[in-house]
Amino acid sequence: MNILSGKGLFISLEGIDGSGKTSLKERLQLYLEKNCGLEVLGVREPGGNIISEKIRKLLLDAGNQGMTSRTEALLYAAARSQVVEEVIRPALMADKVVLADRYMDSTIAYQGYGRGLELNFLQQLNQLCTGGLKPDLTLLLDMDSQEALQRRKKDIPDRLEKEGLIFQEKVRDGYLQLAREEGERIKILDAGQEPERVLGEALCYLDKLLLKRL
Amino acid sequence: MNILSGKGLFISLEGIDGSGKTSLKERLQLYLEKNCGLEVLGVREPGGNIISEKIRKLLLDAGNQGMTSRTEALLYAAARSQVVEEVIRPALMADKVVLADRYMDSTIAYQGYGRGLELNFLQQLNQLCTGGLKPDLTLLLDMDSQEALQRRKKDIPDRLEKEGLIFQEKVRDGYLQLAREEGERIKILDAGQEPERVLGEALCYLDKLLLKRL
Repeated sequence: MNILSGKGLFISLEGIDGSGKTSLKERLQLYLEKNCGLEVLGVREPGGNIISEKIRKLLLDAGNQGMTSRTEALLYAAARSQVVEEVIRPALMADKVVLADRYMDSTIAYQGYGRGLELNFLQQLNQLCTGGLKPDLTLLLDMDSQEALQRRKKDIPDRLEKEGLIFQEKVRDGYLQLAREEGERIKILDAGQEPERVLGEALCYLDKLLLKRL
Repeated sequence: MNILSGKGLFISLEGIDGSGKTSLKERLQLYLEKNCGLEVLGVREPGGNIISEKIRKLLLDAGNQGMTSRTEALLYAAARSQVVEEVIRPALMADKVVLADRYMDSTIAYQGYGRGLELNFLQQLNQLCTGGLKPDLTLLLDMDSQEALQRRKKDIPDRLEKEGLIFQEKVRDGYLQLAREEGERIKILDAGQEPERVLGEALCYLDKLLLKRL
């Protein structure tokens, strides 16, 4: 038994592509392991296990152009459902920190605000696929969409990355709306800063959360 | 414009594996085309288009043993969502007859009664993935589970077929329960009879439905 007192700690990282989630995730993991002596499990959404990775491959395949927005949302939900039951819940039960690169808010931001699917449909879907499991803390890496686009230097953009700037802006606005609605859980980080400062902001929120557990 | 008067006709075939859905579907299609001069589109669930076939492959892959029941249900829903928007709705709009080998009732019978997932979860999922599109007529091919098992002669059973007799019996009971609840839409056929007699029963129900449209 450690500071997490038998229920683990579930942190999700959200933000548009190029906002630095992967980098922050690695730094956070290192910090929590080295400085806090906690066991950390990193999870990537959609993915994190064999079945979800197969679904991820289907989703990111640039050849699947005819995929409807609802099908896309349901596939994300399927991958999430698998990772929740197979990976996240067992890790939390074992008192680990789960660091998820994307979780339920991505569905609302991308499929809802980005693609225009009904929010009510997506909220129901989120509830169904997570069984109601919400993160203890969600760190939203917020930054200018144009700047985020320039950060990404891949030669072959995948299907979702092709959608372009206007889409990313809608997604960003969606995230900010979510943060207004769930301010207790979702904390906004200025992701345009140096990585060390982003980490610093993240740790502030994390410390507050851990203090509550003491 | 034909007898279907601008809204098509949507018929689903349901029943446990080995109950003769494929055979009935072929006979029905021939009858409707030759005798009624209708344009018929056969749909197989999960599948019927490139994306859904890929999902189908994932579902039937005997290697995916760790798949949770919820993930399975969500994958079926994703495949169905795609086939509803890409195939079924356009065909009905074009005044065709859609003959679906499995549809929403399979979800309730297999994942609900078979695997024990909450019916409420599955009903919500059905609503989400079909957008509320129900068949005009559902033909339930009912037969003894043992007899259905003997009819199937494949050498390599897929993941779902491995589940065995007890599972098939639960599924059968689930179907019968659904038929009690939605007697107006779901009609039970005695699938243990000769194929010609099963077709005859099916045509009785179909004629009644078509007469209402005149």
